[in-house]
This record gives sequence, C-alpha cells and structure tokens, in this order.
Amino acid sequence: MKESFFENINIQESTLPERTAQQISRLIVERRLTSEDRLPSEFELAELLHVGRGTIREGVKLLVARNVLEIRRGKGTYIASNPGEIPDPLGFAYCSDPFQLALDLAEVRGQLEPWIARMAAEHAAKEDLNRLRESCLVVEQDILNGWNHSEHDVQFHVAVAKCTQNLVVPKLIPIITYAVTLFVSLTESRLKTETVMGHRELVNAIENHDGDRAEKVMTQHIEYNRALLEEIIANLKNEDTKEGSLQEKREMI
Amino acid sequence: MKESFFENINIQESTLPERTAQQISRLIVERRLTSEDRLPSEFELAELLHVGRGTIREGVKLLVARNVLEIRRGKGTYIASNPGEIPDPLGFAYCSDPFQLALDLAEVRGQLEPWIARMAAEHAAKEDLNRLRESCLVVEQDILNGWNHSEHDVQFHVAVAKCTQNLVVPKLIPIITYAVTLFVSLTESRLKTETVMGHRELVNAIENHDGDRAEKVMTQHIEYNRALLEEIIANLKNEDTKEGSLQEKREMI
Repeated sequence: MKESFFENINIQESTLPERTAQQISRLIVERRLTSEDRLPSEFELAELLHVGRGTIREGVKLLVARNVLEIRRGKGTYIASNPGEIPDPLGFAYCSDPFQLALDLAEVRGQLEPWIARMAAEHAAKEDLNRLRESCLVVEQDILNGWNHSEHDVQFHVAVAKCTQNLVVPKLIPIITYAVTLFVSLTESRLKTETVMGHRELVNAIENHDGDRAEKVMTQHIEYNRALLEEIIANLKNEDTKEGSLQEKREMI
Repeated sequence: MKESFFENINIQESTLPERTAQQISRLIVERRLTSEDRLPSEFELAELLHVGRGTIREGVKLLVARNVLEIRRGKGTYIASNPGEIPDPLGFAYCSDPFQLALDLAEVRGQLEPWIARMAAEHAAKEDLNRLRESCLVVEQDILNGWNHSEHDVQFHVAVAKCTQNLVVPKLIPIITYAVTLFVSLTESRLKTETVMGHRELVNAIENHDGDRAEKVMTQHIEYNRALLEEIIANLKNEDTKEGSLQEKREMI
C-alpha cells in the first residue's frame, strides 16, 4: 500500500519472485530488521511465505540487486546498511542530454542548498559539527595532494545536510550533485581555490549558527560552480558545432 | 566513472554478474538504446563481453530488478521506458520513524514546490498546459466518485513540475510526495475541498503565466497539507502514549 503511487513506474511486479521479494521486504519492515540482523533462513522463509526455496532464492537475488539485502561472505545474507538506496536512483546515466541534465541539476541545487545551509546553521548539533569539520579537511587534503576530490566533495555537502536534522535532505544530496562527477575533470583545476575557501567559510558560518551567512556563502558557492559549468558546456557545444561544420565542409569537398 | 561517487552506497559490485550488468548498462548508454530497442541477444552479448551466456543471464536479471531492462512477454528483453527509475529509490519504506519522515518530507515540499510552481508559470508550453488541465480533472473525478485520489494527486504535482522544462524536478516529485500515501487515508476526507480548489487556482495561475500567484497558491496548498499532517501525527502519538499508559496501568493491577 505504501508504494502504490510508484506503480506507474513500469516495474514488472506480477512474477512470483517479484511478489516474493515484496513479501520479504514487508517482513523486514514489520520485524524492524536492521543491518545488524541476518535474514531468516531460506527454509524458514519458504515455510512462512508458502513458496519453494528456489523462489525464495530468486526473491532474495532481486533484493540484493536493489541493495535491500547484502551477502556477507562466510556469514550469510543480512539486511543492507542503507536498505533500498541504490546508486543513481533516478537513472540519470541513461539521460539523452547530459548537458541539459547538468544545468538543470545546478538549478535545483541553487534552490535547495542555500536553504539547507541555513537550516544546518540553525540546527547543527555538536557531533554534526565535528563530522563537518573533518569532512572539510578531507576535501582540502585531496586538493593539496592533487587527487580527484569529487566524491569527498559530495560527502561534504551530505555532512552539511545532516546538520539540518531533516531525514530527507542528506539523501537528496547525492542525487542533485550527480553532475559534479559528470564534469569534474573539466572544472576541477579552476575550482580548487574557490572550493577550499567556500567550504571553510561555510563551516565557520554553521559553527557560529549564523543562518543568514551560511545561506549567503552557499548561494555564492553554488552560483560560482553553476557559472563555470555553463561556460564549460557552452564551450563544449561550440566545439561540437565547429567539428560539425568541419565535417560538413569535408563532405562538401 | 560517472557513478564513482555513489560507491559509498554499499552495493556489492565485485561479483561477475554485477560487473556484467555494469557493462551491459554502459553499452545501453553508449549505443543510446531506448525503450524502442531490444537488447542484443545473449549470444551477441556473451561474445562482446567475453563471458558465458549464463553470466549474461544473471547480469540481465540484475538490470531487470533495477528496471533498466524489461521482459516483454513473447517479444524478448527491451530497454525499460524510464530506465533505472525504481519505486521508492531512497528506501523510505525501511525508515524506522515514518512520522518524522512524513514531517521532514513536508518541510522539503514546502521549500521546493512553491518555487516549482513559479517556474511552471514562467515556462509552461501549450502541451504542458493541456496535460496539466487534464490531470487536474482526473483528481476531481476521483474525489467526486469517492475514490482514493493519492496516486493521481502525485501525478498532478508531476504535471506541474513538467511545466518547468527542468529535467530533474518531475523526477523529484514522487520522492518528496512519498508521505502522501503514508497518511492519505487519514487526511483524505478533510483535504478534499481544499485539494479541488487549490489545484484549480494553481492551474489558473500557471495558465496565466503568473509566477507570483502560482508560488503563493502552492505555498498555501503545501502549508495546509503540512498543518493537517502535523495535527494528525500529534493525535496518533497522543493515542500511542495513552495506550502505553493504559497498558502500564493494567500491568500495575
């Protein structure tokens, strides 16, 4: 029932393994099983759900594919630590226009992240601030060492979002920062200084519980990123066009 | 490379079927395959990826589980129509505190949807408006007939989001409206009039390309929903407490 409105997404739910997967998933929710908990045995599940052990095995495979369950080697099948969270949950990898996707993601970030920064400053607890400061340092170390900092950059923004105490916003960050990895190799070198300074200022504002300042710094940080992204995409499209016309010229000869 | 920063989500990527699934998924992106396209045959994929047909079959199963591929009966394996989009992609069903989740989702909606409404008014094209008007009617029909309108309600908000021309926001709506189905049976009766009037006013504002008005109407619509949700949750928690103390009293006797 909880998932009813998602049904317009065309998942094939009518197969027996699929229905079995749903029942196992319901069992996990009802029994409040966590990543500490081992899944009941195939034998027990087969008895409980009135299906064969082969069907249980297929249902379990589906839930492993969706990161609801995980197989720990030599230990058995457990509940995953973030059950149901998967990489690229909105299928951005299959988007036919990655340029437009990146710009549209930047637009959403521009709307959401300054608000998140304000909330972070207003609600951050002591543990949140420790994690945030540490996360800020990790990005700086990446940059000092000349390493790709995109993954840790996303984690820094997640750490900011966790300060809000809102359960949803930290989960939205990996989605709306998807574009960071799409174009990071192109933007990286020019963004390094801004990143270090922007992150430091943001941490200070949040530590001082200064909502106005946090919102302002985040707005600048996202806008700087966005402007650079727009410039890079314009250049890439320009090169495409030039190559296109070059191609046309060649064909005309 | 595109998915690198998602790796902190603990999906088990080291197995052969998982690596095969990733290679098939890369193939889909590179060849720009769409839902019109049939997946190349097991035989062809096995040749191409240098693995056995059994491994291909396991890899395909993983991608079916993640709604990247779909099996059309009597036709074969095709690319799904929204590849990679799955129901409940953030695993909200496994959240241990659904009350807090619902309130936090309402907070995110309050921040995002008024902005979406403004953008919708500013960028709606003619086809968008047709779809929006139709979607508005479908919800009203549900309500007139006494049917559960939660699924169509979400689709109405998706139709508003599609008016923005932003690729990302329509995909965020099913996530942030997740709570609609969690509590709809409780809120439904009291929300019906407000829903009909609110939706109609919103459609009018968007049709008139009046961004200020659209933002204002959406703010009221979301705030009304949120206040009602807060009231209902407070009552539910209250009942829980009463039952708890009743239980304690019984045990004391």
